[in-house]
Amino acid sequence: MIINKEGIRDPEGETIKNYIVNKVTDKVKEVRAGKYLSFSVDVKEESEAIELVKKIAYEDRLYNPIVHKIIVRAEKIENGGN
Amino acid sequence: MIINKEGIRDPEGETIKNYIVNKVTDKVKEVRAGKYLSFSVDVKEESEAIELVKKIAYEDRLYNPIVHKIIVRAEKIENGGN
Repeated sequence: MIINKEGIRDPEGETIKNYIVNKVTDKVKEVRAGKYLSFSVDVKEESEAIELVKKIAYEDRLYNPIVHKIIVRAEKIENGGN
Repeated sequence: MIINKEGIRDPEGETIKNYIVNKVTDKVKEVRAGKYLSFSVDVKEESEAIELVKKIAYEDRLYNPIVHKIIVRAEKIENGGN
């Protein structure tokens, strides 16, 4: 997941919250919008997958570290990867 | 997370895989791109948060069930929510 850092405004999330979500519930305090990228990685360990994806994201500039932060999670899938 | 269903092409993910990721590694078998939305929800239980977010996503048409699938995860944050 690639989202704007805390403190950097997120107009898309604010719009979804103010004009859509607030019309139906007051339980949602904040909405943040971002990009989701799922990688199927062929490695043995979850930690290896996380390192590889972080490296690709940073070196290949899938995000901009000045304004974005990334959240990387791994999930094991037999005969597959994440 | 909102992503295209299996079987529906994902040109953005394919482009990232073929023109960026494949240049540096052959361990990534697939990339799928999608939208990430994070909701801070003020409820007691994780299951309540998941139900609420699913309801909002469906009824307020944050995604299109014909072409997209959604993945909803909850995480407990004290004095906050997700």
